[in-house]
Amino acid sequence: MAPVKKGILERLNAGEVVIGDGGFVIALEKRGYVKAGPWTPEATVTHPEAVRQLHREFLRAGANVMQTFTFYSSDDKLENRGQSLKYTGAQINEAACDLAKEVASEGDALVAGGVCQTPSYLSCKSETEVKAIFKKQMEVYIKKNVDFLIAEYFEHVEEAEWAVQVLKTGGKPVAASMCIGPEGDMHGVSPAECAVRLVKAGSQIIGVNCHFDPMTCVQAVKMMKAGVEKAGLKAHYMVQPLAYHTPECNCQGHIELPEFPFALEPRTLTRWDMHKYAREAYKVGIRFIGGCCGFEPYHIRAVAEELAPERGIMPPGSEKHGMWGSALEMHTKPWVRARSRREYWENLMPASGRPKCPSLSTPESWGVTKGHADLLQHKEATSTQEMGHLLEMQKKAKSSA
Amino acid sequence: MAPVKKGILERLNAGEVVIGDGGFVIALEKRGYVKAGPWTPEATVTHPEAVRQLHREFLRAGANVMQTFTFYSSDDKLENRGQSLKYTGAQINEAACDLAKEVASEGDALVAGGVCQTPSYLSCKSETEVKAIFKKQMEVYIKKNVDFLIAEYFEHVEEAEWAVQVLKTGGKPVAASMCIGPEGDMHGVSPAECAVRLVKAGSQIIGVNCHFDPMTCVQAVKMMKAGVEKAGLKAHYMVQPLAYHTPECNCQGHIELPEFPFALEPRTLTRWDMHKYAREAYKVGIRFIGGCCGFEPYHIRAVAEELAPERGIMPPGSEKHGMWGSALEMHTKPWVRARSRREYWENLMPASGRPKCPSLSTPESWGVTKGHADLLQHKEATSTQEMGHLLEMQKKAKSSA
Amino acid sequence: MAPVKKGILERLNAGEVVIGDGGFVIALEKRGYVKAGPWTPEATVTHPEAVRQLHREFLRAGANVMQTFTFYSSDDKLENRGQSLKYTGAQINEAACDLAKEVASEGDALVAGGVCQTPSYLSCKSETEVKAIFKKQMEVYIKKNVDFLIAEYFEHVEEAEWAVQVLKTGGKPVAASMCIGPEGDMHGVSPAECAVRLVKAGSQIIGVNCHFDPMTCVQAVKMMKAGVEKAGLKAHYMVQPLAYHTPECNCQGHIELPEFPFALEPRTLTRWDMHKYAREAYKVGIRFIGGCCGFEPYHIRAVAEELAPERGIMPPGSEKHGMWGSALEMHTKPWVRARSRREYWENLMPASGRPKCPSLSTPESWGVTKGHADLLQHKEATSTQEMGHLLEMQKKAKSSA
Amino acid sequence: MAPVKKGILERLNAGEVVIGDGGFVIALEKRGYVKAGPWTPEATVTHPEAVRQLHREFLRAGANVMQTFTFYSSDDKLENRGQSLKYTGAQINEAACDLAKEVASEGDALVAGGVCQTPSYLSCKSETEVKAIFKKQMEVYIKKNVDFLIAEYFEHVEEAEWAVQVLKTGGKPVAASMCIGPEGDMHGVSPAECAVRLVKAGSQIIGVNCHFDPMTCVQAVKMMKAGVEKAGLKAHYMVQPLAYHTPECNCQGHIELPEFPFALEPRTLTRWDMHKYAREAYKVGIRFIGGCCGFEPYHIRAVAEELAPERGIMPPGSEKHGMWGSALEMHTKPWVRARSRREYWENLMPASGRPKCPSLSTPESWGVTKGHADLLQHKEATSTQEMGHLLEMQKKAKSSA
Repeated sequence: MAPVKKGILERLNAGEVVIGDGGFVIALEKRGYVKAGPWTPEATVTHPEAVRQLHREFLRAGANVMQTFTFYSSDDKLENRGQSLKYTGAQINEAACDLAKEVASEGDALVAGGVCQTPSYLSCKSETEVKAIFKKQMEVYIKKNVDFLIAEYFEHVEEAEWAVQVLKTGGKPVAASMCIGPEGDMHGVSPAECAVRLVKAGSQIIGVNCHFDPMTCVQAVKMMKAGVEKAGLKAHYMVQPLAYHTPECNCQGHIELPEFPFALEPRTLTRWDMHKYAREAYKVGIRFIGGCCGFEPYHIRAVAEELAPERGIMPPGSEKHGMWGSALEMHTKPWVRARSRREYWENLMPASGRPKCPSLSTPESWGVTKGHADLLQHKEATSTQEMGHLLEMQKKAKSSA
Repeated sequence: MAPVKKGILERLNAGEVVIGDGGFVIALEKRGYVKAGPWTPEATVTHPEAVRQLHREFLRAGANVMQTFTFYSSDDKLENRGQSLKYTGAQINEAACDLAKEVASEGDALVAGGVCQTPSYLSCKSETEVKAIFKKQMEVYIKKNVDFLIAEYFEHVEEAEWAVQVLKTGGKPVAASMCIGPEGDMHGVSPAECAVRLVKAGSQIIGVNCHFDPMTCVQAVKMMKAGVEKAGLKAHYMVQPLAYHTPECNCQGHIELPEFPFALEPRTLTRWDMHKYAREAYKVGIRFIGGCCGFEPYHIRAVAEELAPERGIMPPGSEKHGMWGSALEMHTKPWVRARSRREYWENLMPASGRPKCPSLSTPESWGVTKGHADLLQHKEATSTQEMGHLLEMQKKAKSSA
Repeated sequence: MAPVKKGILERLNAGEVVIGDGGFVIALEKRGYVKAGPWTPEATVTHPEAVRQLHREFLRAGANVMQTFTFYSSDDKLENRGQSLKYTGAQINEAACDLAKEVASEGDALVAGGVCQTPSYLSCKSETEVKAIFKKQMEVYIKKNVDFLIAEYFEHVEEAEWAVQVLKTGGKPVAASMCIGPEGDMHGVSPAECAVRLVKAGSQIIGVNCHFDPMTCVQAVKMMKAGVEKAGLKAHYMVQPLAYHTPECNCQGHIELPEFPFALEPRTLTRWDMHKYAREAYKVGIRFIGGCCGFEPYHIRAVAEELAPERGIMPPGSEKHGMWGSALEMHTKPWVRARSRREYWENLMPASGRPKCPSLSTPESWGVTKGHADLLQHKEATSTQEMGHLLEMQKKAKSSA
Repeated sequence: MAPVKKGILERLNAGEVVIGDGGFVIALEKRGYVKAGPWTPEATVTHPEAVRQLHREFLRAGANVMQTFTFYSSDDKLENRGQSLKYTGAQINEAACDLAKEVASEGDALVAGGVCQTPSYLSCKSETEVKAIFKKQMEVYIKKNVDFLIAEYFEHVEEAEWAVQVLKTGGKPVAASMCIGPEGDMHGVSPAECAVRLVKAGSQIIGVNCHFDPMTCVQAVKMMKAGVEKAGLKAHYMVQPLAYHTPECNCQGHIELPEFPFALEPRTLTRWDMHKYAREAYKVGIRFIGGCCGFEPYHIRAVAEELAPERGIMPPGSEKHGMWGSALEMHTKPWVRARSRREYWENLMPASGRPKCPSLSTPESWGVTKGHADLLQHKEATSTQEMGHLLEMQKKAKSSA
C-alpha cells in the first residue's frame, strides 16, 4: 500500500517548492488529440493512452502536481463547442481523474481537479447558474477524491470568486489562478485587488496562469503578493505561465497576438529561458511553479533542475539530461562538445532563422481592429448574448481609454 | 488476418505519395527519453510506452512509414557513447522492430529498418569492419521481417555506398538518404554525384534527411534527381528534412549553428511552413515525403493535409484539426475567429518575441573557430584517430577554399 | 529693407505652426566639423561656410527658426572639453549669431540664441555661479539682437529653471526645453511638474528635445501640457526629438544605448516616419515642431510637407521632392515607378539588411553596469565633484528602485 | 603657383592608395538639391555653394579624387527627366568642372570627369548615336582640362565599352566602373568577362560602383581581377560601393529592394563597417577606394583612417575625430567614456530600434512581380522603345532561368 503523501498545503507551509505540470491543451493539439478552436478534452475518453503518456512525461520531468485534463469540460462549454455531445462532462472528467490518479501514484505527485471560465458567465447567466456549472464539475473531483482543487484561467475576478466559493464547499484545499497580467483583469481590476478578493473568497493559494510569458506572469504574481501583504492577509503563490515570449502583449495576453494559436513557434522558450524563469519565480517568493500552454516536459524538467539545490532532488527525467548541456561532451563533433557548459547556453541569443520576419508584432483585439464590422456579420458568432456582452465590454474599454 | 499491404516500391511505382514520420531523437529528448549528446535509442527497451506512443502519433498524423527507432544503435556507437553497455544493439533494435511493427499494424503503414553513419568509419576502420557493423544491424531487421531498409544520415557518400551494398543483401527494397545540402558531402562530392553513386550501389530510393531546413533539402534532392536523370538512371526520391529554418548553414548543416541542439526553438517551422514544404517537394517530383529532427506529429499532419487532394485521403488526426485553421470559428474571441482562413495563415510573418536576438547567426565549425586549440586538449576527444581524421578533412577543406 | 518678421509669440498666439531646424552637432560631426566627445561648436569660427551651409539647408527645408550653433559653448564647458582655449565662448557665440542671422534674413526664419546644461551645475557649483554662466552667454545674444532665447537640453529641472530665470532678464521671449522622456528628469521629477515649474519660472514655450525618439518626445510633451493645464496655467509647446528610433530607452535616453554615438545609423527615421511624427505632434497641440540629433534637412522637409495643408505653404526645398515619392514616376526602372504613391511608403516596414543584429538592445548606464568600478579608476573622470554627484544620484536611484 | 600634382596612374603605379569621394546624388537629395526620380545634377548651376561644400567635406575627409557632379547630365537624359531644359548638359557640366577644380586645388586631389549610362542605349539607339552622347560630355571635360575620366554606373558591358572607346580619344587616363555584382551585367556577362572587355577597350583602371554593399562590391572586383589576370592582362582596380547593407540583392542591386530609395536608412553602414570595408578592399589588391550612394563625409574619413598606416597620412577631417572613438574620453557620462576603444566598436552589433520590421526584405523587379501588368498601363512608361527593350530582356532572363 502506498504511503500517504504530504498534501499541497503541508508542502507549501513547510516552504517546499512544488513543481507544476505543463499545459495539456497545446501539447495534445500538437500530438493530434485536441482540436484548436473548441479546445475540449474529450481525449480523456477517446485516447486515454495519449493523456496518460503526457502525464507520465511531466511526472518524469519532476512535476508534483498532476492536473486533471478537464479544461473547458463543463457541460455548457461542451455543448457550445462542437464536441457534439458524444460524451458528457461527467464522463470526460471522471476519465481525467482516473488518468491523473493512476500516474500520480507512480511518483511523488498530487492530483488537482480543475475548473475554468465558462461561456455561461460570458453570456451573462446568473451567479446561481454559473455556480451550478462549477458545482457539477467539483462533485466529480470529490467523488474521485482528488488531493486539491484549482480554479484557473479566469479573465474576470468575479467569476473566479464564484468558482472559489463553490470549490470551498468540497472540503479540499483550493487554489485560484487567473489568466491576467500586470494590467489586471478584463474590467481593469488590478492583480493586487484580484488577489485580495480571491484570498477573501477562500483560496489558500493564488496566482496566474496562461496568457503571458514567464517573466510577465511572475511580475503579476509579485503584484498580487504585494496586494495580499498590504491587506494584512496571507496566501501561498503559484505561477503557470506560457512557454512563449510575449513582451508586446496587452491585457488579453497572447490571444491578441497575430500568431495565436498556429504560428507561435518562434516564441517558444528554450530550457535555458526556463532556468531564468524558475529562479525569478523562486526569488519573488512563489513556491508552486509550473507551466501552461507551450510547455513540453523538458521545460518542466528545466524548472526542476534549476531548483534542484533548493529541493534537494533531481527529477527522474534528468537521467537523460546533462545539467547545462554537460552531456554534449559525448557529441561526435568537437565544436559541439565545446558547448557543454553553462556560460555558453546562458549567454546565447538564439536566432530565429527567419530574416524576413519581425521580432515583435502588433497585438490585435476586437474593436481595436477593423475586424469589428466583419465580426458582426460573422455567421459563427456563437450567440447574440455573447456578442452583446462583448460589445458592452468593448464600449466600456473605449470610454475609459 | 490483416490484408497484405502494398510495398514501398509498389506505392512509389504507382505514383502514390508516401508520407514519412518525424525524427524520434529530438522528439523523445523533449519528452525525456533520449539524452542529447550520445543520442542513443535505448528507450525502446527501457520506455517502450513512450516510443510506442510517438509511433502512434505519427501514424495518426498520416505517416505511411514507421521507421524503427534505431538511430545510433550500432554496437560501436553504443560502446562509445555512454549507454554503458546495459543493452546490446541487438536488444535495442529488436525492441525497436517490435514497437514499429505493432503500431504499423494499426494503420496503413510500412516498417523500415534503418542504419546510419558509424564511429567506425569516422575513425578510419576498414571497409570490412564498417560493413560488419551494418550487417549486424540488418540481420535483426531481416529476422523481424521489416518491409524495407533505409540507410540514412550519412555525411560521407563512401560510407553510404557501403551501407547500401550491405543492405542490398537483405533482399528488401533499399532507400538511401544522406544528411547533405546543395554543397554536397563532407568531401565536397556533389548531390548529383552522390545520387548516381547511391543508385549504382543499389538503392531504389534516394534522398536527403536531417541537417537542413525543408526548402534546402528539397533543393538538394532536386540536384540529386537532375544528376540521376542526366546519367540515364532511374530512382525514386525521398526527403526528410529538419523542422527548423536554417538558411545560413554551410555544408555541415544545423550542427554548426550556435543554437544546436538546445536553443533551436525560435527556428521551428509552423504547420503553414510545412504546407509550403510539402507542395514544393511534390512539385519537384519527390514522392516519399517525411521529416526528421524537430518534426512533431502536427508537422506531419500538415504535410498529409497539403497533399490530401493528391492522395485522396485525410489523415486520421485531422479529425482534431480544421484545415487552414477553420476550427477557429469556434474560438471564444471574435478576433481569433477572424483567423479561420487560409489567406491569414499563409501570409503571416510570425514574430519571434525576442527583440534582443538576431534573425540569423554565424555557423561555427571545427577549425573555422578558435575552438580548435581548446579542442586538442579536450579530455573527451573520443580518439586520436577520430581527431586525426577530422584534422585531415579540415586541412583539405582549407586548401580547397 | 527687409519687412519686420512676426515674432515667435505672435506666430504661436495666432495658432501658426512653427517649424524648427535640426540638430547641428551630429550633422556637422558627420560632415567633419564637430568632435564627438567634447561636442563643442568652435566651427562657427573655424569653418563658418560649413555652419552657414547647414543653416541654409534647414531654411530651404522649411525651418522658421535658426538656432545659433552654440551648444556646449559656455566657458566652463569649453575649458573642460579639449577645445584648448583657442577661442572664448564669446567669440564662438558671436560668430554663431552672425551666421544664423545671415541665413535667417534669406527667408522667413527667426533667430534663437540658446543655452544648455553646464558642467558647473553637475559639479555642484552654486546657483550664483551657474547663473553667471548663462548670463554671460545671454549677453552675447542680446547684443546680437536675436529674436528669442531657448534654454534647452537640461536633464535637471532645477538647472533649467535657473536658466529661464536668467534668460527672462533679457527681455526676449523664452522657450525652455528639457532632454527628458515620460519618466521625467534625472531626479524623477515628472514631465508635468517640470512643465509647471518652467512656466512659473517664466517660459512662454516649453517642451522637450533630444534623448528620445519623436513619438516618445511627443508623449512627454503631452504629459507636460496636461500638467500645465491641470495647474490652470498657459503655455505654448515645442518638441525637437532625435531622428533615431529609441523604444527601449530608460530615463537617460539614447545616451544609454550601446550604439551611442557611433552606431546609431540603423535607427535613423525615414522621411515617412517624420510625416507620422509631425502629424502626431500637431494632433497633441504642439505648434513649434523641429528636430535634434540625427535630423538631416530632408527630415525637416518631411515635417514641413506633412503640415503643408495647415500652414498653407510648401518649403522651398520641395521643388526637389515629389510629395509621397511622386517624382519616382520619372525613374528608369518600371518597378521603382510603381512606388510613386503614398500607400506604398506609409506601409513599408524597412529592413535593416543586418540579419545578425538584434532589433533592440539593452540600455546601459552608470552603476547599472560593471562599468562602475572601471570608472572610478578612469583617468578622464572630469572631477571628483562630478563623480560624487553622479554617485549620489546613483544611490538615490537604487534606493527608490 | 601650385605644384603639379601626381596623376592618377603615377599614384597607382607607385602602389599608393587613392581615396575616392562619396556619391553626390543621394547626399544632395538629403540636403535638398537633387530630386529623387530624375536624379539630375542641375544644382551645379542653381546651387553651386551646396555642391562646393560637399566637395570640400569629402576633401577634408581624405578624398584624393573630386568627381565632377555630372551624373545623368547627358542631354538625352536631361530631356527625358523633368529638368525641363532650363540648362543644357554643357552648362551643367562646365559648372561641375569648375566646382570640382576649385575644391581640388585646395588639397591633394585630382579631378575626374564622368559619364554614365544613357537612356539612348536603353532605347536601342545606335552605337554612333550613343557614342555621340559620350563625346559631347567628354569635350567639356577636355576643355576644362580635368585630370582623368571615369565611365561609371553601367549595367551593360557593351555600353561601358563604347564609353571607354570614346573617352580614350581624350588623351587622359580612363577608368571604367560598372554597377554590377558577382552575378555580372544585365545580360549575365560575368564580372571577369566584363573586366577583360573593359581593359581591352582601353581602361587603365576598372572596377564597380553603386548597386551593392561594400563587401559584395569588393567580391565583384576580386572576380574582375581574377579574370584580368587569367587573361594575362594588367589593370588597376577601383571600388565605390553603396553605404547600405544589401545582402539579399539579386543582379539589379539595391534598386530592387522595396526600401529604395526612400527607406534605406536602417541599412546605412556605420564608420566601423567602413573600416572593415577599407581593409578588405586593400587586401584584395584594390587601390582606388571610394564610395557611392549613401556615403557621407565621415564614411570616407573612416576609409582614410583605416588605411592611414599604409598611406602615412591622416585626413584633415580627423582633427575632429578620435580614432576608434578615443575622443569619447571627454564625454560627460562615464559609461560613454567607457566606449572610447576599438574592441567596443568593432564587436558591437547595432540594433535597428524597429522590432516590428524584418532584417531582410524581398527584392522585387520587373516581371518577377505582379507589377508587370500594372506597368504596361503606366502612363509614365517613358517610351515604347524602352518598354520593348525591357520586355525583351525580361524574356531572355526568364528563358534562361
